[in-house]
Amino acid sequence: MKAEIISIGTEITTGQNLDTNAQWLSRQLAVIGIPVGFHTTVSDDLTDNVNVFRIAASRAKIVLASGGLGPTLDDLTREALALLTNVQLVENAESLQRIQAMFAKRGRVMPDRNKVQALFPQGAEPILNERGTAPGIWLPIGDSVIACMPGVPSEMFHMFETQVKPRLLAMGFIGGVQIERKINTFGLGESGVEERLKELTARGRIPEIGITVSDAIVSLRIIARATTLEEALALAAPDELAIRERLAEMVYGVEQEELQDVVVALLAKHRLTIATAESVTGGLVANRLVTVPGVSEWFHGGIVAYDNRVKVQQLAVPESLIQQHGAVSKEVVEAMAIGCRTKLGTDLAIATVGLAGPGGGTEEKPVGLVFVALASDAGVITQSFNWNGTRTEVQSRAAKLALNVVRLYLLKRGS
Amino acid sequence: MKAEIISIGTEITTGQNLDTNAQWLSRQLAVIGIPVGFHTTVSDDLTDNVNVFRIAASRAKIVLASGGLGPTLDDLTREALALLTNVQLVENAESLQRIQAMFAKRGRVMPDRNKVQALFPQGAEPILNERGTAPGIWLPIGDSVIACMPGVPSEMFHMFETQVKPRLLAMGFIGGVQIERKINTFGLGESGVEERLKELTARGRIPEIGITVSDAIVSLRIIARATTLEEALALAAPDELAIRERLAEMVYGVEQEELQDVVVALLAKHRLTIATAESVTGGLVANRLVTVPGVSEWFHGGIVAYDNRVKVQQLAVPESLIQQHGAVSKEVVEAMAIGCRTKLGTDLAIATVGLAGPGGGTEEKPVGLVFVALASDAGVITQSFNWNGTRTEVQSRAAKLALNVVRLYLLKRGS
Repeated sequence: MKAEIISIGTEITTGQNLDTNAQWLSRQLAVIGIPVGFHTTVSDDLTDNVNVFRIAASRAKIVLASGGLGPTLDDLTREALALLTNVQLVENAESLQRIQAMFAKRGRVMPDRNKVQALFPQGAEPILNERGTAPGIWLPIGDSVIACMPGVPSEMFHMFETQVKPRLLAMGFIGGVQIERKINTFGLGESGVEERLKELTARGRIPEIGITVSDAIVSLRIIARATTLEEALALAAPDELAIRERLAEMVYGVEQEELQDVVVALLAKHRLTIATAESVTGGLVANRLVTVPGVSEWFHGGIVAYDNRVKVQQLAVPESLIQQHGAVSKEVVEAMAIGCRTKLGTDLAIATVGLAGPGGGTEEKPVGLVFVALASDAGVITQSFNWNGTRTEVQSRAAKLALNVVRLYLLKRGS
Repeated sequence: MKAEIISIGTEITTGQNLDTNAQWLSRQLAVIGIPVGFHTTVSDDLTDNVNVFRIAASRAKIVLASGGLGPTLDDLTREALALLTNVQLVENAESLQRIQAMFAKRGRVMPDRNKVQALFPQGAEPILNERGTAPGIWLPIGDSVIACMPGVPSEMFHMFETQVKPRLLAMGFIGGVQIERKINTFGLGESGVEERLKELTARGRIPEIGITVSDAIVSLRIIARATTLEEALALAAPDELAIRERLAEMVYGVEQEELQDVVVALLAKHRLTIATAESVTGGLVANRLVTVPGVSEWFHGGIVAYDNRVKVQQLAVPESLIQQHGAVSKEVVEAMAIGCRTKLGTDLAIATVGLAGPGGGTEEKPVGLVFVALASDAGVITQSFNWNGTRTEVQSRAAKLALNVVRLYLLKRGS
């Protein structure tokens, strides 16, 4: 039993507007255990609308549409449904009254063209719209049901919550509960993660485990469906354990957690302060840290040492070191971390250097090469990496690498 | 001659991720005059994928798909196309070499699993991917053509621009021209901009002018359609002039230009260097500047002075000033800018203080209050603002305000 979500409007197919209704409806259906197989967006073309509804009703039990219910000539949903089911459009007196009343309430006379909003294909029933003039349309067709809602998000959200969802539940269109557990990792690519997880990510497995990658963060999503919440949680728990076992310290957090959230929590746990000394990331590590509320107790500040003069003058990096090894080197990044820790008087200091490109790379030191160093009372740790990517990608990943080096250090540090 | 755009992935049909690829592709096709009739999103289900491609190829001449080309088991596009056209998957030696070379360049061995990315349905040809391991697939089918691209936006954008668009143009898939001119402004809200533009933004007007707002940047889009590029440009030109006249120096750039791009260009024009002294923005102003290639000649570095001790010790802000006025004050931000300019020896220094929240606000100094100061040889300019917003919104807008203060200063400075 699959659902399909249809979004209607040329403003979406032309790319002028971004469709967010389909995402919202998918999430609502997931919560009540109805899997969504398809989203379809169609322009304001009558024949295309009829065909899209025909295909949807043939492959999905539940079809939720939004858009095309307004009073203007390019609002075609009513007509498309009438053609699809080969019936006439008939006026619904109660709906007409409601639309007139809504205009009256706003002190306006209903324009004649709004009358069409009270027309319904025979066999359909109106869905109450408490937020606007366009009633929705509820149309059973064969084994399936089509529910059409307005395209305006606030009207659609309210109509789904108060009118459509209760009808779906009453019809027994419910597959229990679906929960989703997201586990975030850093340090391995997508295929590397999958190799370690092996059979866990096999297609068709229950619960399903999906992998997504976003800017060097590989996330696993355990999607568990069951009749009760307890059962769903019990289904997901062993998989989370298995993932954590196999990926070990590469797992840094869950759900919306980002590396900086975890780093700040660990700093607080150990009661350690930190400062930043940034070249290639140009302030991005500091900026990620300050997105976390309450960070000011642990993050004191930093030096953005973009120009070599700043490295020398503000971070006491010996000029000879830069001449000998180049600014993008293990030696210089170490000196920056040590200099920053001394200068700002913090427990830890994290430093970055690298080549973000697009120009400036050599064979020995290609664009994408990044060095990170962490200075602490235990000395200096460095790590390097080389990414293929745009300038901002290299900068963003370098900042993540830096945060991850701090995280791993704090995880291993005795308390 | 219509196009269909297919987005593949259970992470989209479940609503976990928002599909932005379809919108982007729709806009690109609009520019070259190809109307999009349908967007379809399908989950990672093999049968559903085959059927979705079958329907698309039957109703559209051009089918652009993204997603499902990765190396993992839920990447089904290759298989779906082979089933659709009833052929075998065959290995493409050149593609395999490219994938191996990409791993080698990063100093890694190609996992076995990535081999599948070199498989293509017989009759298809690979599309070069310069940004990642997954080649695209170009598959003529009957009168139509299917082009499959990776789901990762940066890879997809690049592949479309450099590989797919040229092929579409070469095949004569073009139906008139639509141009879109985007004009970016900072300093007025959406309704303020609309008030100044009045009749220019009326619905149904030709050319159409749309307003979009994103993180305090209000953009106007002039959309002009004509049979030739010259005609379309001639249609849009008077509107751009009118917008620039009415919004004056609030217009900072066009198309994808960001405030930092304009600031760096102005710094280069005046041959002036800059440094940053950031409290509330915590490195974000510096980070925005370093996204611009070639900035290193003008941006030397900065101090992230999050903690008051750093303001005092690194920026020579008198402690008494902080005690008397508070860290979030005109007086302190001015002292930071002056101290930073002296310390880093640059022509200009820009400083920020503010309350990003969520905690820490008072009646006199509410969350969202931001002060910005620019020190130059002509003295100090300050500006303050107060935004309602989340922590990251306040930080981001404060950084934009700072960049805008630099921009306006440089615009007015004689050369």
